[in-house]
Amino acid sequence: MTKNKKVNASILIIGNEILSGRTQDTNTGTIALWLNSIGVTVMEVRVIPDIEKTIIDTVNELREYNDYLFTTGGIGPTHDDITARSISKAFKLDYEIHPEAFKILEAYYKPGEFNEGRQKMVWMPKDAKLILNPTSGAPGFNIDNVFCLPGVPSILKSMLGGLKNRIVGGKPILSNTISLRTVESEIAKSLSKVQDNNQDIEIGSYPFFQAGKLGVSIVIRSEDQFKIDSCSSEILNFVDEKKIEVVER
Amino acid sequence: MTKNKKVNASILIIGNEILSGRTQDTNTGTIALWLNSIGVTVMEVRVIPDIEKTIIDTVNELREYNDYLFTTGGIGPTHDDITARSISKAFKLDYEIHPEAFKILEAYYKPGEFNEGRQKMVWMPKDAKLILNPTSGAPGFNIDNVFCLPGVPSILKSMLGGLKNRIVGGKPILSNTISLRTVESEIAKSLSKVQDNNQDIEIGSYPFFQAGKLGVSIVIRSEDQFKIDSCSSEILNFVDEKKIEVVER
Repeated sequence: MTKNKKVNASILIIGNEILSGRTQDTNTGTIALWLNSIGVTVMEVRVIPDIEKTIIDTVNELREYNDYLFTTGGIGPTHDDITARSISKAFKLDYEIHPEAFKILEAYYKPGEFNEGRQKMVWMPKDAKLILNPTSGAPGFNIDNVFCLPGVPSILKSMLGGLKNRIVGGKPILSNTISLRTVESEIAKSLSKVQDNNQDIEIGSYPFFQAGKLGVSIVIRSEDQFKIDSCSSEILNFVDEKKIEVVER
Repeated sequence: MTKNKKVNASILIIGNEILSGRTQDTNTGTIALWLNSIGVTVMEVRVIPDIEKTIIDTVNELREYNDYLFTTGGIGPTHDDITARSISKAFKLDYEIHPEAFKILEAYYKPGEFNEGRQKMVWMPKDAKLILNPTSGAPGFNIDNVFCLPGVPSILKSMLGGLKNRIVGGKPILSNTISLRTVESEIAKSLSKVQDNNQDIEIGSYPFFQAGKLGVSIVIRSEDQFKIDSCSSEILNFVDEKKIEVVER
Protein backbone atom coordinates (compact mmCIF):
# COMPACT_ATOMS: atom_id res chain seq x y z
CA MET A 1 0.00 0.00 0.00
CA THR A 2 1.63 3.26 -1.05
CA LYS A 3 1.28 6.55 0.78
CA ASN A 4 -0.66 7.95 -2.20
CA LYS A 5 -3.54 5.52 -2.06
CA LYS A 6 -6.69 6.62 -0.24
CA VAL A 7 -7.18 4.34 2.75
CA ASN A 8 -10.74 3.79 4.01
CA ALA A 9 -12.26 2.36 7.15
CA SER A 10 -15.67 1.77 8.65
CA ILE A 11 -16.64 1.63 12.29
CA LEU A 12 -19.19 -0.85 13.61
CA ILE A 13 -20.68 -0.08 17.02
CA ILE A 14 -22.26 -3.21 18.49
CA GLY A 15 -24.69 -2.64 21.33
CA ASN A 16 -28.38 -2.35 22.19
CA GLU A 17 -27.58 0.39 24.72
CA ILE A 18 -26.66 2.84 21.95
CA LEU A 19 -29.75 2.00 19.86
CA SER A 20 -32.06 2.47 22.84
CA GLY A 21 -30.61 5.94 23.45
CA ARG A 22 -29.58 4.94 26.98
CA THR A 23 -25.86 5.36 26.27
CA GLN A 24 -24.24 8.09 24.17
CA ASP A 25 -21.61 6.66 21.82
CA THR A 26 -18.31 8.51 21.99
CA ASN A 27 -16.10 5.78 20.52
CA THR A 28 -16.85 6.90 16.95
CA GLY A 29 -15.22 10.27 17.59
CA THR A 30 -12.23 8.72 19.36
CA ILE A 31 -11.53 6.23 16.57
CA ALA A 32 -12.28 8.70 13.75
CA LEU A 33 -9.92 11.41 15.05
CA TRP A 34 -7.16 8.85 15.52
CA LEU A 35 -7.66 7.33 12.05
CA ASN A 36 -7.64 10.77 10.43
CA SER A 37 -4.34 11.53 12.10
CA ILE A 38 -2.77 8.46 10.47
CA GLY A 39 -4.31 9.06 7.03
CA VAL A 40 -7.33 6.78 7.14
CA THR A 41 -10.73 8.16 6.10
CA VAL A 42 -13.84 6.88 7.86
CA MET A 43 -16.45 6.22 5.17
CA GLU A 44 -19.26 4.86 7.28
CA VAL A 45 -20.36 4.14 10.83
CA ARG A 46 -23.04 1.62 11.71
CA VAL A 47 -24.69 0.90 15.04
CA ILE A 48 -26.33 -2.52 15.28
CA PRO A 49 -27.93 -4.60 18.04
CA ASP A 50 -26.45 -7.60 19.89
CA ILE A 51 -27.95 -10.08 17.39
CA GLU A 52 -25.61 -12.74 16.03
CA LYS A 53 -26.92 -12.84 12.46
CA THR A 54 -26.87 -9.04 12.19
CA ILE A 55 -23.26 -8.93 13.43
CA ILE A 56 -22.13 -11.67 11.03
CA ASP A 57 -23.85 -10.15 7.99
CA THR A 58 -22.71 -6.59 8.71
CA VAL A 59 -19.09 -7.59 9.41
CA ASN A 60 -18.96 -9.59 6.19
CA GLU A 61 -20.46 -6.70 4.20
CA LEU A 62 -18.23 -3.97 5.63
CA ARG A 63 -14.90 -5.85 5.69
CA GLU A 64 -15.36 -6.55 1.97
CA TYR A 65 -15.23 -2.96 0.70
CA ASN A 66 -13.16 -1.24 3.40
CA ASP A 67 -9.42 -1.38 3.95
CA TYR A 68 -10.13 -1.64 7.68
CA LEU A 69 -13.11 -2.37 9.88
CA PHE A 70 -13.16 -1.47 13.57
CA THR A 71 -15.79 -2.94 15.86
CA THR A 72 -16.55 -1.76 19.39
CA GLY A 73 -18.46 -3.54 22.14
CA GLY A 74 -19.55 -7.04 23.02
CA ILE A 75 -16.23 -8.54 24.11
CA GLY A 76 -16.84 -8.60 27.87
CA PRO A 77 -17.72 -11.54 30.16
CA THR A 78 -21.55 -11.47 30.12
CA HIS A 79 -24.17 -13.34 28.06
CA ASP A 80 -24.84 -10.30 25.84
CA ASP A 81 -21.15 -10.16 24.79
CA ILE A 82 -21.35 -12.11 21.53
CA THR A 83 -18.92 -10.25 19.27
CA ALA A 84 -16.02 -12.74 19.39
CA ARG A 85 -18.29 -15.71 18.70
CA SER A 86 -20.07 -13.86 15.88
CA ILE A 87 -16.80 -12.76 14.25
CA SER A 88 -15.57 -16.37 14.39
CA LYS A 89 -18.68 -17.41 12.49
CA ALA A 90 -18.32 -14.51 10.01
CA PHE A 91 -14.81 -15.76 9.15
CA LYS A 92 -15.80 -19.47 9.46
CA LEU A 93 -13.09 -19.90 12.09
CA ASP A 94 -13.22 -22.01 15.23
CA TYR A 95 -14.21 -20.10 18.37
CA GLU A 96 -11.74 -21.29 20.99
CA ILE A 97 -9.52 -20.41 23.95
CA HIS A 98 -6.67 -18.15 22.82
CA PRO A 99 -3.57 -19.49 24.64
CA GLU A 100 -1.74 -16.14 24.78
CA ALA A 101 -4.83 -14.26 26.01
CA PHE A 102 -5.34 -16.98 28.63
CA LYS A 103 -1.79 -16.50 29.91
CA ILE A 104 -2.20 -12.72 30.03
CA LEU A 105 -5.39 -12.84 32.09
CA GLU A 106 -4.15 -15.66 34.31
CA ALA A 107 -1.19 -13.44 35.24
CA TYR A 108 -3.37 -10.30 35.47
CA TYR A 109 -5.80 -11.60 38.11
CA LYS A 110 -4.98 -12.71 41.65
CA PRO A 111 -4.91 -16.48 42.20
CA GLY A 112 -8.49 -17.78 42.22
CA GLU A 113 -9.95 -14.65 40.61
CA PHE A 114 -9.66 -15.84 37.01
CA ASN A 115 -13.17 -17.30 37.17
CA GLU A 116 -15.51 -18.70 34.52
CA GLY A 117 -16.90 -15.26 33.59
CA ARG A 118 -13.43 -13.83 33.05
CA GLN A 119 -12.33 -16.92 31.13
CA LYS A 120 -15.07 -16.17 28.58
CA MET A 121 -12.97 -13.16 27.53
CA VAL A 122 -10.17 -15.38 26.17
CA TRP A 123 -12.49 -17.18 23.73
CA MET A 124 -11.72 -15.80 20.28
CA PRO A 125 -11.56 -16.75 16.61
CA LYS A 126 -8.73 -19.27 16.06
CA ASP A 127 -5.34 -17.61 15.42
CA ALA A 128 -6.61 -14.08 16.17
CA LYS A 129 -3.88 -11.51 16.78
CA LEU A 130 -4.27 -9.84 20.16
CA ILE A 131 -4.75 -6.12 20.75
CA LEU A 132 -3.21 -5.46 24.15
CA ASN A 133 -5.20 -3.69 26.85
CA PRO A 134 -3.08 -1.60 29.24
CA THR A 135 -6.13 -0.58 31.29
CA SER A 136 -8.00 -3.70 32.33
CA GLY A 137 -6.10 -6.69 30.99
CA ALA A 138 -8.58 -8.35 28.65
CA PRO A 139 -7.24 -7.99 25.11
CA GLY A 140 -9.12 -7.16 21.92
CA PHE A 141 -8.32 -9.08 18.77
CA ASN A 142 -7.68 -8.71 15.07
CA ILE A 143 -8.51 -11.08 12.21
CA ASP A 144 -7.50 -10.06 8.71
CA ASN A 145 -8.63 -6.40 8.31
CA VAL A 146 -11.09 -6.47 11.22
CA PHE A 147 -10.08 -5.01 14.61
CA CYS A 148 -12.31 -5.74 17.61
CA LEU A 149 -12.20 -3.31 20.52
CA PRO A 150 -14.20 -3.05 23.75
CA GLY A 151 -17.12 -0.68 24.27
CA VAL A 152 -15.93 1.09 27.43
CA PRO A 153 -14.54 4.40 26.06
CA SER A 154 -11.57 4.80 28.42
CA ILE A 155 -10.38 1.24 27.80
CA LEU A 156 -10.84 1.56 24.03
CA LYS A 157 -8.84 4.79 24.02
CA SER A 158 -5.94 3.18 25.87
CA MET A 159 -5.73 0.38 23.28
CA LEU A 160 -5.52 2.47 20.09
CA GLY A 161 -1.91 3.52 20.60
CA GLY A 162 -0.77 -0.10 20.40
CA LEU A 163 -2.38 -0.46 16.97
CA LYS A 164 -0.42 2.28 15.25
CA ASN A 165 2.10 0.00 13.56
CA ARG A 166 -0.60 -2.39 12.38
CA ILE A 167 -2.63 0.16 10.40
CA VAL A 168 -1.08 1.48 7.19
CA GLY A 169 -2.65 4.82 6.35
CA GLY A 170 -2.34 7.17 3.39
CA LYS A 171 -1.37 10.81 3.63
CA PRO A 172 -2.76 12.35 6.82
CA ILE A 173 -5.94 14.34 6.21
CA LEU A 174 -5.25 17.97 7.08
CA SER A 175 -7.85 20.58 7.90
CA ASN A 176 -8.33 24.27 8.56
CA THR A 177 -11.31 25.80 10.33
CA ILE A 178 -12.44 29.39 9.78
CA SER A 179 -15.13 30.52 12.22
CA LEU A 180 -17.24 33.51 11.25
CA ARG A 181 -19.76 35.73 12.99
CA THR A 182 -22.47 35.26 10.36
CA VAL A 183 -25.26 32.90 9.33
CA GLU A 184 -24.97 30.25 6.63
CA SER A 185 -27.37 31.91 4.19
CA GLU A 186 -25.15 35.03 4.01
CA ILE A 187 -22.18 33.09 2.71
CA ALA A 188 -23.87 30.17 0.93
CA LYS A 189 -23.48 31.56 -2.61
CA SER A 190 -19.86 32.70 -2.26
CA LEU A 191 -18.85 29.49 -0.51
CA SER A 192 -20.47 27.45 -3.24
CA LYS A 193 -18.31 29.30 -5.81
CA VAL A 194 -15.16 28.49 -3.83
CA GLN A 195 -16.21 24.83 -3.72
CA ASP A 196 -16.76 24.87 -7.52
CA ASN A 197 -13.23 26.29 -7.99
CA ASN A 198 -11.74 23.62 -5.69
CA GLN A 199 -13.57 20.42 -6.46
CA ASP A 200 -10.98 18.11 -4.90
CA ILE A 201 -11.20 19.88 -1.53
CA GLU A 202 -13.87 19.03 1.03
CA ILE A 203 -15.50 22.22 2.30
CA GLY A 204 -18.06 21.86 5.09
CA SER A 205 -20.21 24.56 6.64
CA TYR A 206 -21.47 24.15 10.21
CA PRO A 207 -23.63 26.63 12.13
CA PHE A 208 -22.80 27.04 15.82
CA PHE A 209 -24.17 28.81 18.89
CA GLN A 210 -21.55 30.11 21.29
CA ALA A 211 -22.07 32.42 24.24
CA GLY A 212 -25.53 33.23 22.90
CA LYS A 213 -24.26 34.26 19.48
CA LEU A 214 -24.73 32.61 16.11
CA GLY A 215 -21.79 31.75 13.92
CA VAL A 216 -20.62 29.46 11.15
CA SER A 217 -17.51 27.28 11.08
CA ILE A 218 -16.13 26.52 7.65
CA VAL A 219 -13.98 23.39 7.66
CA ILE A 220 -11.60 22.81 4.76
CA ARG A 221 -10.14 19.30 4.47
CA SER A 222 -7.56 17.87 2.12
CA GLU A 223 -4.33 15.89 2.13
CA ASP A 224 -2.61 18.89 0.52
CA GLN A 225 -1.67 21.82 2.78
CA PHE A 226 -1.04 24.11 -0.21
CA LYS A 227 -4.57 23.54 -1.50
CA ILE A 228 -6.03 24.16 1.95
CA ASP A 229 -4.15 27.47 2.21
CA SER A 230 -5.20 28.62 -1.23
CA CYS A 231 -8.83 27.69 -0.60
CA SER A 232 -8.73 29.46 2.79
CA SER A 233 -7.48 32.64 1.06
CA GLU A 234 -10.39 32.55 -1.38
CA ILE A 235 -12.81 32.25 1.54
CA LEU A 236 -11.14 35.05 3.52
CA ASN A 237 -11.35 37.26 0.41
CA PHE A 238 -15.13 37.14 0.20
CA VAL A 239 -15.42 37.31 3.99
CA ASP A 240 -13.43 40.54 3.86
CA GLU A 241 -15.52 41.95 1.01
CA LYS A 242 -18.72 41.19 2.92
CA LYS A 243 -17.22 42.77 6.09
CA ILE A 244 -17.96 39.60 8.09
CA GLU A 245 -16.14 39.28 11.45
CA VAL A 246 -13.65 36.40 11.66
CA VAL A 247 -13.93 34.78 15.11
CA GLU A 248 -11.17 32.22 14.61
CA ARG A 249 -8.94 31.10 11.78
CA MET B 1 -50.93 -1.21 12.09
CA THR B 2 -52.06 -2.78 15.36
CA LYS B 3 -50.59 -2.01 18.75
CA ASN B 4 -49.25 -5.58 18.93
CA LYS B 5 -47.01 -5.36 15.90
CA LYS B 6 -43.32 -4.58 16.49
CA VAL B 7 -42.54 -1.26 14.84
CA ASN B 8 -38.98 -0.66 13.65
CA ALA B 9 -37.00 2.37 12.55
CA SER B 10 -33.53 3.23 11.40
CA ILE B 11 -31.67 6.51 11.78
CA LEU B 12 -29.43 7.87 9.04
CA ILE B 13 -26.96 10.57 10.09
CA ILE B 14 -25.74 12.46 7.02
CA GLY B 15 -22.58 14.49 7.50
CA ASN B 16 -18.82 14.45 6.98
CA GLU B 17 -18.35 16.28 10.31
CA ILE B 18 -19.44 13.21 12.28
CA LEU B 19 -17.25 10.83 10.25
CA SER B 20 -14.18 13.04 10.71
CA GLY B 21 -14.69 13.02 14.48
CA ARG B 22 -14.93 16.80 14.54
CA THR B 23 -18.54 16.79 15.75
CA GLN B 24 -20.05 14.44 18.31
CA ASP B 25 -23.44 13.13 17.19
CA THR B 26 -26.15 13.49 19.83
CA ASN B 27 -29.17 13.26 17.53
CA THR B 28 -29.16 9.45 17.65
CA GLY B 29 -29.84 9.50 21.39
CA THR B 30 -32.52 12.19 21.08
CA ILE B 31 -34.42 10.36 18.34
CA ALA B 32 -33.95 6.90 19.88
CA LEU B 33 -35.27 7.88 23.32
CA TRP B 34 -38.28 9.57 21.75
CA LEU B 35 -39.02 6.61 19.47
CA ASN B 36 -38.77 4.16 22.36
CA SER B 37 -41.29 6.22 24.31
CA ILE B 38 -43.83 5.82 21.50
CA GLY B 39 -43.15 2.11 20.94
CA VAL B 40 -40.74 2.20 18.01
CA THR B 41 -37.53 0.14 18.20
CA VAL B 42 -34.40 1.50 16.54
CA MET B 43 -32.80 -1.40 14.67
CA GLU B 44 -29.86 0.39 13.07
CA VAL B 45 -28.04 3.70 12.85
CA ARG B 46 -25.80 4.64 9.96
CA VAL B 47 -23.52 7.62 9.54
CA ILE B 48 -22.62 8.43 5.93
CA PRO B 49 -20.80 11.25 4.12
CA ASP B 50 -22.33 14.09 2.05
CA ILE B 51 -22.08 12.07 -1.17
CA GLU B 52 -25.19 11.96 -3.35
CA LYS B 53 -24.92 8.38 -4.54
CA THR B 54 -24.27 7.12 -1.00
CA ILE B 55 -27.32 9.00 0.31
CA ILE B 56 -29.58 7.70 -2.47
CA ASP B 57 -28.46 4.08 -2.12
CA THR B 58 -28.61 4.06 1.68
CA VAL B 59 -32.03 5.72 1.85
CA ASN B 60 -33.42 3.24 -0.68
CA GLU B 61 -31.95 0.30 1.23
CA LEU B 62 -33.09 1.38 4.69
CA ARG B 63 -36.59 2.60 3.81
CA GLU B 64 -37.32 -0.78 2.26
CA TYR B 65 -37.01 -2.89 5.42
CA ASN B 66 -37.89 -0.42 8.14
CA ASP B 67 -41.30 0.91 9.12
CA TYR B 68 -39.70 4.35 9.45
CA LEU B 69 -36.46 6.00 8.45
CA PHE B 70 -35.26 9.23 10.04
CA THR B 71 -32.48 11.25 8.43
CA THR B 72 -30.59 14.11 10.08
CA GLY B 73 -28.44 16.77 8.47
CA GLY B 74 -27.88 18.29 5.06
CA ILE B 75 -31.04 20.41 4.75
CA GLY B 76 -29.47 23.86 5.31
CA PRO B 77 -28.64 26.58 2.79
CA THR B 78 -25.03 25.75 1.84
CA HIS B 79 -23.49 23.77 -1.03
CA ASP B 80 -22.84 20.74 1.19
CA ASP B 81 -26.54 20.45 2.06
CA ILE B 82 -27.63 17.87 -0.49
CA THR B 83 -30.13 15.74 1.43
CA ALA B 84 -33.34 17.13 -0.14
CA ARG B 85 -32.00 16.78 -3.68
CA SER B 86 -30.68 13.27 -2.97
CA ILE B 87 -33.97 12.11 -1.41
CA SER B 88 -35.83 13.46 -4.48
CA LYS B 89 -33.61 11.29 -6.65
CA ALA B 90 -34.02 8.28 -4.35
CA PHE B 91 -37.81 8.52 -4.78
CA LYS B 92 -37.56 9.60 -8.45
CA LEU B 93 -39.52 12.75 -7.62
CA ASP B 94 -38.99 16.25 -8.98
CA TYR B 95 -36.82 18.49 -6.79
CA GLU B 96 -38.70 21.79 -6.72
CA ILE B 97 -39.81 24.78 -4.67
CA HIS B 98 -42.33 23.72 -2.03
CA PRO B 99 -45.04 26.44 -2.11
CA GLU B 100 -46.07 26.07 1.55
CA ALA B 101 -42.44 26.09 2.77
CA PHE B 102 -41.80 29.17 0.61
CA LYS B 103 -44.73 30.99 2.27
CA ILE B 104 -43.53 30.01 5.76
CA LEU B 105 -40.00 31.33 5.23
CA GLU B 106 -41.15 34.43 3.34
CA ALA B 107 -43.24 35.33 6.41
CA TYR B 108 -40.49 34.27 8.85
CA TYR B 109 -37.76 36.59 7.54
CA LYS B 110 -37.82 40.38 7.46
CA PRO B 111 -38.50 41.91 4.00
CA GLY B 112 -35.39 41.55 1.85
CA GLU B 113 -33.81 38.87 4.06
CA PHE B 114 -35.29 35.86 2.28
CA ASN B 115 -32.25 35.66 0.01
CA GLU B 116 -31.04 33.04 -2.47
CA GLY B 117 -29.26 30.99 0.22
CA ARG B 118 -32.38 30.80 2.37
CA GLN B 119 -34.55 30.04 -0.64
CA LYS B 120 -32.51 26.88 -1.19
CA MET B 121 -34.13 25.52 1.98
CA VAL B 122 -37.60 25.42 0.34
CA TRP B 123 -36.43 23.11 -2.46
CA MET B 124 -37.77 19.66 -1.68
CA PRO B 125 -39.09 16.48 -3.29
CA LYS B 126 -42.43 17.23 -5.04
CA ASP B 127 -45.44 16.89 -2.72
CA ALA B 128 -43.33 16.40 0.41
CA LYS B 129 -45.22 16.84 3.69
CA LEU B 130 -43.60 19.50 5.86
CA ILE B 131 -42.24 18.98 9.37
CA LEU B 132 -42.66 22.32 11.10
CA ASN B 133 -39.71 23.99 12.80
CA PRO B 134 -40.65 26.12 15.81
CA THR B 135 -37.02 27.17 16.41
CA SER B 136 -35.64 28.59 13.20
CA GLY B 137 -38.40 28.51 10.58
CA ALA B 138 -36.99 26.22 7.89
CA PRO B 139 -39.13 23.05 7.86
CA GLY B 140 -38.03 19.46 7.47
CA PHE B 141 -40.01 17.15 5.23
CA ASN B 142 -41.51 13.70 4.97
CA ILE B 143 -41.98 11.47 1.93
CA ASP B 144 -43.64 8.11 2.43
CA ASN B 145 -41.93 6.53 5.49
CA VAL B 146 -38.85 8.79 5.39
CA PHE B 147 -38.61 11.78 7.74
CA CYS B 148 -35.86 14.36 7.09
CA LEU B 149 -34.71 16.47 10.00
CA PRO B 150 -31.92 19.04 10.38
CA GLY B 151 -28.53 18.30 11.95
CA VAL B 152 -28.46 21.05 14.59
CA PRO B 153 -29.45 19.17 17.79
CA SER B 154 -31.54 21.90 19.45
CA ILE B 155 -33.56 22.49 16.28
CA LEU B 156 -34.07 18.78 15.67
CA LYS B 157 -35.28 18.32 19.24
CA SER B 158 -37.85 21.08 18.87
CA MET B 159 -39.31 19.44 15.74
CA LEU B 160 -39.93 15.92 17.11
CA GLY B 161 -42.99 16.88 19.16
CA GLY B 162 -44.84 17.88 16.00
CA LEU B 163 -44.30 14.40 14.54
CA LYS B 164 -46.05 12.47 17.28
CA ASN B 165 -49.34 11.99 15.43
CA ARG B 166 -47.58 10.94 12.23
CA ILE B 167 -45.67 8.00 13.70
CA VAL B 168 -47.72 4.95 14.68
CA GLY B 169 -45.78 2.94 17.25
CA GLY B 170 -46.37 -0.40 18.91
CA LYS B 171 -46.46 -0.98 22.64
CA PRO B 172 -44.01 1.34 24.40
CA ILE B 173 -40.76 -0.40 25.30
CA LEU B 174 -40.43 -0.43 29.09
CA SER B 175 -37.22 -0.90 31.04
CA ASN B 176 -35.84 -1.36 34.53
CA THR B 177 -32.25 -0.68 35.56
CA ILE B 178 -30.59 -2.40 38.53
CA SER B 179 -27.17 -0.94 39.39
CA LEU B 180 -24.83 -3.07 41.44
CA ARG B 181 -21.53 -2.56 43.23
CA THR B 182 -19.77 -5.46 41.51
CA VAL B 183 -17.89 -6.38 38.33
CA GLU B 184 -19.43 -8.17 35.34
CA SER B 185 -17.44 -11.37 35.76
CA GLU B 186 -18.95 -11.92 39.26
CA ILE B 187 -22.49 -12.03 37.95
CA ALA B 188 -21.98 -13.28 34.39
CA LYS B 189 -22.97 -16.89 35.04
CA SER B 190 -26.06 -16.11 37.17
CA LEU B 191 -27.21 -13.42 34.76
CA SER B 192 -26.84 -15.79 31.85
CA LYS B 193 -29.16 -18.26 33.61
CA VAL B 194 -31.77 -15.53 34.11
CA GLN B 195 -31.52 -14.68 30.40
CA ASP B 196 -31.99 -18.37 29.51
CA ASN B 197 -35.14 -18.47 31.67
CA ASN B 198 -36.48 -15.30 30.04
CA GLN B 199 -35.64 -15.55 26.38
CA ASP B 200 -38.14 -12.94 25.19
CA ILE B 201 -36.68 -10.28 27.52
CA GLU B 202 -33.66 -8.17 26.56
CA ILE B 203 -31.13 -8.15 29.39
CA GLY B 204 -28.08 -5.93 28.96
CA SER B 205 -25.08 -5.66 31.27
CA TYR B 206 -23.04 -2.45 31.29
CA PRO B 207 -20.00 -1.73 33.45
CA PHE B 208 -19.72 1.81 34.83
CA PHE B 209 -17.22 3.93 36.77
CA GLN B 210 -18.80 6.36 39.19
CA ALA B 211 -17.07 8.43 41.86
CA GLY B 212 -13.99 6.25 41.41
CA LYS B 213 -15.90 3.01 42.01
CA LEU B 214 -16.67 0.19 39.59
CA GLY B 215 -20.20 -1.02 39.10
CA VAL B 216 -22.51 -2.79 36.69
CA SER B 217 -25.90 -1.64 35.46
CA ILE B 218 -28.26 -4.38 34.39
CA VAL B 219 -30.93 -3.10 32.02
CA ILE B 220 -34.06 -5.21 31.50
CA ARG B 221 -36.23 -4.22 28.51
CA SER B 222 -39.57 -5.55 27.34
CA GLU B 223 -43.04 -4.36 26.34
CA ASP B 224 -44.45 -6.32 29.30
CA GLN B 225 -44.13 -4.78 32.78
CA PHE B 226 -45.04 -8.07 34.46
CA LYS B 227 -42.19 -9.86 32.73
CA ILE B 228 -39.76 -7.07 33.66
CA ASP B 229 -40.80 -7.32 37.31
CA SER B 230 -40.47 -11.09 37.40
CA CYS B 231 -37.07 -10.97 35.70
CA SER B 232 -35.91 -8.24 38.11
CA SER B 233 -36.88 -10.44 41.07
CA GLU B 234 -34.81 -13.33 39.70
CA ILE B 235 -31.83 -11.00 39.40
CA LEU B 236 -32.31 -9.54 42.88
CA ASN B 237 -32.46 -13.08 44.27
CA PHE B 238 -28.98 -14.02 43.11
CA VAL B 239 -27.67 -10.56 44.01
CA ASP B 240 -28.93 -11.14 47.53
CA GLU B 241 -27.41 -14.63 47.70
CA LYS B 242 -24.06 -13.27 46.54
CA LYS B 243 -24.30 -10.40 49.09
CA ILE B 244 -23.73 -7.81 46.34
CA GLU B 245 -24.64 -4.22 47.21
CA VAL B 246 -27.52 -2.74 45.18
CA VAL B 247 -26.68 0.87 44.31
CA GLU B 248 -29.94 1.66 42.54
CA ARG B 249 -33.06 -0.24 41.48
